Amino acid sequence: MAHYREHERTSIVEALNPARQMKVMGRLVRRRAKKPGSAPGTLVSSGPQKVERVRVRFLDYDEKQLNDNEEASIDECLKLKKLPTVSWINIDGLHEVELIGRVGERFEWHPLVQEDIASPGQRAKIEEYEGHTFVTLPMLTWNVERKEVIEEQLSLVVGENYVFSFQERYGDVFNGVRERIRAGRTRIRSRGSDYLAYALIDAVVDHYFTVIEEIGEFTEVLDERVLADSSQDTMQVLHALKRELITLRRAMWPVREMLNSILRSETHLFDDSTKVFMRDVQDHTVQALDTIESLRDVVSGMVDLYLSMVSFRANEIMKVLTIMASIFIPLTFFAGIYGMNFEFMPELAVRWAYPALLLFMVVIGSGMVAFFRRKGWL
Amino acid sequence: MAHYREHERTSIVEALNPARQMKVMGRLVRRRAKKPGSAPGTLVSSGPQKVERVRVRFLDYDEKQLNDNEEASIDECLKLKKLPTVSWINIDGLHEVELIGRVGERFEWHPLVQEDIASPGQRAKIEEYEGHTFVTLPMLTWNVERKEVIEEQLSLVVGENYVFSFQERYGDVFNGVRERIRAGRTRIRSRGSDYLAYALIDAVVDHYFTVIEEIGEFTEVLDERVLADSSQDTMQVLHALKRELITLRRAMWPVREMLNSILRSETHLFDDSTKVFMRDVQDHTVQALDTIESLRDVVSGMVDLYLSMVSFRANEIMKVLTIMASIFIPLTFFAGIYGMNFEFMPELAVRWAYPALLLFMVVIGSGMVAFFRRKGWL
Amino acid sequence: MAHYREHERTSIVEALNPARQMKVMGRLVRRRAKKPGSAPGTLVSSGPQKVERVRVRFLDYDEKQLNDNEEASIDECLKLKKLPTVSWINIDGLHEVELIGRVGERFEWHPLVQEDIASPGQRAKIEEYEGHTFVTLPMLTWNVERKEVIEEQLSLVVGENYVFSFQERYGDVFNGVRERIRAGRTRIRSRGSDYLAYALIDAVVDHYFTVIEEIGEFTEVLDERVLADSSQDTMQVLHALKRELITLRRAMWPVREMLNSILRSETHLFDDSTKVFMRDVQDHTVQALDTIESLRDVVSGMVDLYLSMVSFRANEIMKVLTIMASIFIPLTFFAGIYGMNFEFMPELAVRWAYPALLLFMVVIGSGMVAFFRRKGWL
Amino acid sequence: MAHYREHERTSIVEALNPARQMKVMGRLVRRRAKKPGSAPGTLVSSGPQKVERVRVRFLDYDEKQLNDNEEASIDECLKLKKLPTVSWINIDGLHEVELIGRVGERFEWHPLVQEDIASPGQRAKIEEYEGHTFVTLPMLTWNVERKEVIEEQLSLVVGENYVFSFQERYGDVFNGVRERIRAGRTRIRSRGSDYLAYALIDAVVDHYFTVIEEIGEFTEVLDERVLADSSQDTMQVLHALKRELITLRRAMWPVREMLNSILRSETHLFDDSTKVFMRDVQDHTVQALDTIESLRDVVSGMVDLYLSMVSFRANEIMKVLTIMASIFIPLTFFAGIYGMNFEFMPELAVRWAYPALLLFMVVIGSGMVAFFRRKGWL
Amino acid sequence: MAHYREHERTSIVEALNPARQMKVMGRLVRRRAKKPGSAPGTLVSSGPQKVERVRVRFLDYDEKQLNDNEEASIDECLKLKKLPTVSWINIDGLHEVELIGRVGERFEWHPLVQEDIASPGQRAKIEEYEGHTFVTLPMLTWNVERKEVIEEQLSLVVGENYVFSFQERYGDVFNGVRERIRAGRTRIRSRGSDYLAYALIDAVVDHYFTVIEEIGEFTEVLDERVLADSSQDTMQVLHALKRELITLRRAMWPVREMLNSILRSETHLFDDSTKVFMRDVQDHTVQALDTIESLRDVVSGMVDLYLSMVSFRANEIMKVLTIMASIFIPLTFFAGIYGMNFEFMPELAVRWAYPALLLFMVVIGSGMVAFFRRKGWL
Repeated sequence: MAHYREHERTSIVEALNPARQMKVMGRLVRRRAKKPGSAPGTLVSSGPQKVERVRVRFLDYDEKQLNDNEEASIDECLKLKKLPTVSWINIDGLHEVELIGRVGERFEWHPLVQEDIASPGQRAKIEEYEGHTFVTLPMLTWNVERKEVIEEQLSLVVGENYVFSFQERYGDVFNGVRERIRAGRTRIRSRGSDYLAYALIDAVVDHYFTVIEEIGEFTEVLDERVLADSSQDTMQVLHALKRELITLRRAMWPVREMLNSILRSETHLFDDSTKVFMRDVQDHTVQALDTIESLRDVVSGMVDLYLSMVSFRANEIMKVLTIMASIFIPLTFFAGIYGMNFEFMPELAVRWAYPALLLFMVVIGSGMVAFFRRKGWL
Repeated sequence: MAHYREHERTSIVEALNPARQMKVMGRLVRRRAKKPGSAPGTLVSSGPQKVERVRVRFLDYDEKQLNDNEEASIDECLKLKKLPTVSWINIDGLHEVELIGRVGERFEWHPLVQEDIASPGQRAKIEEYEGHTFVTLPMLTWNVERKEVIEEQLSLVVGENYVFSFQERYGDVFNGVRERIRAGRTRIRSRGSDYLAYALIDAVVDHYFTVIEEIGEFTEVLDERVLADSSQDTMQVLHALKRELITLRRAMWPVREMLNSILRSETHLFDDSTKVFMRDVQDHTVQALDTIESLRDVVSGMVDLYLSMVSFRANEIMKVLTIMASIFIPLTFFAGIYGMNFEFMPELAVRWAYPALLLFMVVIGSGMVAFFRRKGWL
Repeated sequence: MAHYREHERTSIVEALNPARQMKVMGRLVRRRAKKPGSAPGTLVSSGPQKVERVRVRFLDYDEKQLNDNEEASIDECLKLKKLPTVSWINIDGLHEVELIGRVGERFEWHPLVQEDIASPGQRAKIEEYEGHTFVTLPMLTWNVERKEVIEEQLSLVVGENYVFSFQERYGDVFNGVRERIRAGRTRIRSRGSDYLAYALIDAVVDHYFTVIEEIGEFTEVLDERVLADSSQDTMQVLHALKRELITLRRAMWPVREMLNSILRSETHLFDDSTKVFMRDVQDHTVQALDTIESLRDVVSGMVDLYLSMVSFRANEIMKVLTIMASIFIPLTFFAGIYGMNFEFMPELAVRWAYPALLLFMVVIGSGMVAFFRRKGWL
Repeated sequence: MAHYREHERTSIVEALNPARQMKVMGRLVRRRAKKPGSAPGTLVSSGPQKVERVRVRFLDYDEKQLNDNEEASIDECLKLKKLPTVSWINIDGLHEVELIGRVGERFEWHPLVQEDIASPGQRAKIEEYEGHTFVTLPMLTWNVERKEVIEEQLSLVVGENYVFSFQERYGDVFNGVRERIRAGRTRIRSRGSDYLAYALIDAVVDHYFTVIEEIGEFTEVLDERVLADSSQDTMQVLHALKRELITLRRAMWPVREMLNSILRSETHLFDDSTKVFMRDVQDHTVQALDTIESLRDVVSGMVDLYLSMVSFRANEIMKVLTIMASIFIPLTFFAGIYGMNFEFMPELAVRWAYPALLLFMVVIGSGMVAFFRRKGWL
Repeated sequence: MAHYREHERTSIVEALNPARQMKVMGRLVRRRAKKPGSAPGTLVSSGPQKVERVRVRFLDYDEKQLNDNEEASIDECLKLKKLPTVSWINIDGLHEVELIGRVGERFEWHPLVQEDIASPGQRAKIEEYEGHTFVTLPMLTWNVERKEVIEEQLSLVVGENYVFSFQERYGDVFNGVRERIRAGRTRIRSRGSDYLAYALIDAVVDHYFTVIEEIGEFTEVLDERVLADSSQDTMQVLHALKRELITLRRAMWPVREMLNSILRSETHLFDDSTKVFMRDVQDHTVQALDTIESLRDVVSGMVDLYLSMVSFRANEIMKVLTIMASIFIPLTFFAGIYGMNFEFMPELAVRWAYPALLLFMVVIGSGMVAFFRRKGWL
């Protein structure tokens, strides 16, 4: 923790160079590749290619057997359709749209499903089609270096005996699920594709908490800093943090709606015993959103606190100026009087005039100091 | 992008002269031509005439044949009523109200439909009448020069075998749809007028994203600028941007409601297979509105950041004043003391008094500097 | 328009004297005459008498005949009850409560109806009683001189074959409706009292747009002024404008609810073909409220802009002070040094000391100027 | 009114001494006497005793007879149970809990009813039990001296042929109702206990308007004052007014919910003809809440206006400082130059040098004045 | 109270050292122990161990008999399952997850119930499973030393004839309930496990008021302080108080939802006579949330008041500076004039010039004082 914080101090400012700002904003408005007016279901690769090559993996299992292939070809996957076992095919990389097209054709997916898979930046949603259900939700991670939320679209197509998962990049939050499948004799091995879909959604939502915890810790560091340091950087970092929370909220709010529509039985994907588990996922999503709202309120409070500190310091500065000027400007005036060159200034010849004036000045000065002390400015 | 931004820098201020301000506001409250108390269905031409002459075009098609007329007369269109093929009649320009009246009479439209077509500035809505459905929604474009959203009303009247589209100006977002119709053997050729209506609505909504993307990029440029430049212009541009987002939200929110009422089956225009596509359009609208909300939050944050920078700079200025005044006013006072002309000032005759006083002044000055350094003001 | 604006400039401030302020607030909380604890249906005259004498007019018509009486007595109106024709009786002035009582008794209205008619300041509402329906909604006008919204209550009692309309003052927005009735052979002549009620409500709601347009134009003028003039008056006018928008919103929001309850068929006054028209009125109300919300957002933005300009100008003032003081205070100090009267100040006798000091002062002064220029303050 | 306002000016500040602040806050969080974990229905006396002794009054009536007892004993009331006439028993003072217990036992009230009566500070609510309905709502009055809302709980228990009303203090808003009962031949005499309950609720809600009108007048006085006087007291009074509006809203909001649930027929207390009257009460409540919301918005606007005036005056002060300092500091410097004692300052001997310098100073000074005038600071 | 406040003054600041800040924030985002992707129902001990050893107590009772065991073993508890009497088993300490596992297995609880018990930091919720209902809600206490809300999770598992309660720490708010059970012949002894569950929930919710009362008193102290002391500490304490209210609201809001779902009969745990009591608990929760909202509004008002006082004092400071500088800088200039050493300054030789200049200075100075007095700055 101590180390973490040291690191914080040095990197907060440099992390906020213009290049990064643009990056952040880029995430608020994600470019869509589809041309307005083009046909629905048009498959175009959206956004920059994020992985070198598309990687295909599958896990095909039932209670007794397991077929685990970490480097599969797409043709092997197409064959899984006929098997009665549950197949989880995971595809990393969305830039080869014709691959998505081939899978979609073979498994008879609706054209809109294929378009949505190929166009990352969708809102979380669940949509039921004949023979398959399409689920999309964002996977979120917190880039601790750049202090930003990374958003990646996960698309699931769930059929009778298969789950396809499409990701934009390698690396995910599903290792726990894979281990449970490989472990054998676990609940997941004895249940159908809907339970697998639940397990994947649950893993994604559970990871949201990791992100929120990390943002929470970062907020703690900042909260401490607001009191210690009122430099302009702090305000910039608060602004950036606010924006991350906006992003997070925008990404997670639709997940809540999606889960609500599952629980209201608007889709038939999940059977009742799985729905009990979905209710749990729903609870977690609501809790995560509550926490984000609370964090937003707290960060707003921090902005207020920061601004009040800036005002407060402005007052401090002005007090020093006022005290110095109010004491010495009148005294200088009195010195100026006796610096005049009039021929007839009788005081000038009086022997005790000089020490008397000095005494007078000390009295005036002390009077001002007493006045300021009474005002509470000293 | 680099070029884009260069352009930005020079034109932001001049784009904000008073004439333009008035323009922007003019869009918030659009003048209605109808006199209060006049009969519903009264046809009056609203607002200024926006095109030189009304242009009529139509595409009449079914799976096998296509009749494409880019410069049709209104009489040719009236004849299309009897044909079983799907006809899409597009009319650019609303100032010839008697033309709308003739079409309305021939196709037996409700008087309110005719009034609504002739009165741009309607909220997006869908209304079902006997034998025809009226849909209106705004087409939005972003004027990159003036940094403002241009709003144009699109009215659709959808019948059994025809779609009428009325626009205020030439130029639209339907070229993709036209190409798909002309291409032949596309989905659109084999389906009815409801699918055509969907395709047009989809093209309009898809174009919203283009507008939001451009505003997003402009926001990026501004966000960078807030940190670099705290001139008053920045605040004005933020104010104008906020207003564009208000306009955008006001225009798009009713589109969402309209699509909701379609999906809730409150109208019978769309059959179930088309509704699947409408659900997709609805998703896009919700996503666009989410993004606008996020942008509004971000712009609010930018205003806060800007104001904090203004305060911060005020403090910087005051610090300089305080430091200079606090060091030199007391020193001037001491110089003033020994500039007095009293006859009996024994120090004046002391040989080392002058260098001693200078030393004393250096000590006082250094003390002040040290004090300010400890305060963190230097 | 130019004239309008000139006028604006001179009258904004005087329009905001305290007397007027009180007036404005008076409208927010309208005094109710009914004593707490008195019986429901108690008829007391509320508020000041607004017209010299009560004026009664009626239009009695069916498709073929028309009886138009601009100065009727109340007894003539009571006779209309038995006629099968549609009668529209309009009464301007509410201070003769016994007149309302007589009509109410004759037409068998519920006591609460009579009380509500006599107590202006009601929320818009529709209430169905046996044999008659009571509708009340505010008529709004914009007093261009005083820049304030004038609110007047319109009460409609709609029976099988009559509509009573009660107004607080002479002058209304119904001239269009009267012309349509007198014109003959118009839709209104061939339909019942429900259509007449619709026509009156439509005229009132259409007039809301006139009010909003005028406020919109006033907002334009102000928006321009905020940039040009940061005097305190501007803030007062923004405050007053905000208050007018609050008044407007408070008055119009219940109209929306009232129309919603009509469309949800909670009352049986309107038949289906009239409801189609009511849907149109509802659309207009929603659009008017949208516009008011947008105007409120814009005015809030203008307050922010105004406040940022005040801060900005404060900084400008402080910059001037800081620059002048920072340059001349140190220089005065150096001049003070050589104004001292020490006997042993060897520099005083040096021939080039005076020009050297002047040069030194020029260097110091130029250095400060360069420093401020680098800071961007000059 | 004039008198009222004079009074205002002198008492606003003293009314806001700390002792009063505490009082106000004390109303936001009202102490509850019930110990957590104690049984429901536990009767403990809450809060300080507010009246010297419990006073019991009743009015027992039907269309023909009336039994009016202003100083009854509790035993007399218990006998009323058996009479077929409608009895209204009013009890002022809640500190004798065993009295409430006796009544509750005799009339077979649910233990929670008895607990709620004895614990003032309840939210307004209606709850139906077997054979009796419990209604509680706050009676509000405006203490014009202390500028604060006084809240008192009114509890009604309505049975077949009786209404019990419990108040915390003597003095209420029911004199109008009493007069109507005593008057004879009024609607209230011919109807049952539900109508009596309606009449009491109506009197309470009508009195809300009196409170709101008085707060509205106070707001008018303040609004005028904000423009005239930017002393810190104004802000404190605005803060206190805001708090009163928060209190008012918190107290009245549940009344609206309670009346809604009556209208939605969730309770069976009121028959249909009485419900028509309840709808009227509901309208009044909604209108009162609308007005409170508007007042809150207006007071928020006043705070903004006040703060902008504070900023504005700060600028005025700074302008004076800047102008004085910018004119005289440079001039003092030039005077300082020629006050130096260098031996070789050729200008000193030039005859026209002194008038020339004076002229130069006048030019510099006038230049600064012109500069400030051009800036609009003079 | 006086003592309380004295204490307040000295400890507010030290209570806000960074270590504490972190603590506070730590509560906003509570760490979850469950690894994303792990199976639902996984039992892991979350967070730090809060008690030295797990303590098990039970009360087994029916109307006639009572078995009270303050230091039971888990095996004794497992045997209670078969008894027809109502058993309340209370377990303090959650770190021995295998213990929870054993109980869960014996009483056939759903795996998610066991996971939720072991993972404190859940939102309040009620979930019905076959044969048992799971309820969780936060117990709140106010740490008067640290001025912070302490949150502890209470989990209830309610079966046919048992209630299990799991707490994180020793010490709770249930002593009243225990006393009622031990007292015999109380309502609680004659009723089933659902009434016991109600009694526990009621005790928890009643305790919320104690917390709110204490926060209310702290708010009173602060409100007084804001007027007396505008040091930066006050703002920090307001910020901390705001955060406590955010925490409180976040914790209590789901309790309201939970009680709503009970009243809407979404669970079958409570029979109708118990539901009457639950309605009462619901009322209390709503009232508590209302109060929190009001407190948040008041604290927001206090922040505004504080900031206006800071501005106000800044103005006071600037006024002093401006008055001193504006009076003495011009006077010093005039003194400087006659301090110049020009040879030809005829005034210097005039006898009355010196007193005339002094008089002139007095006039100028008095003029400035009069000017400032007229401005209201003196």
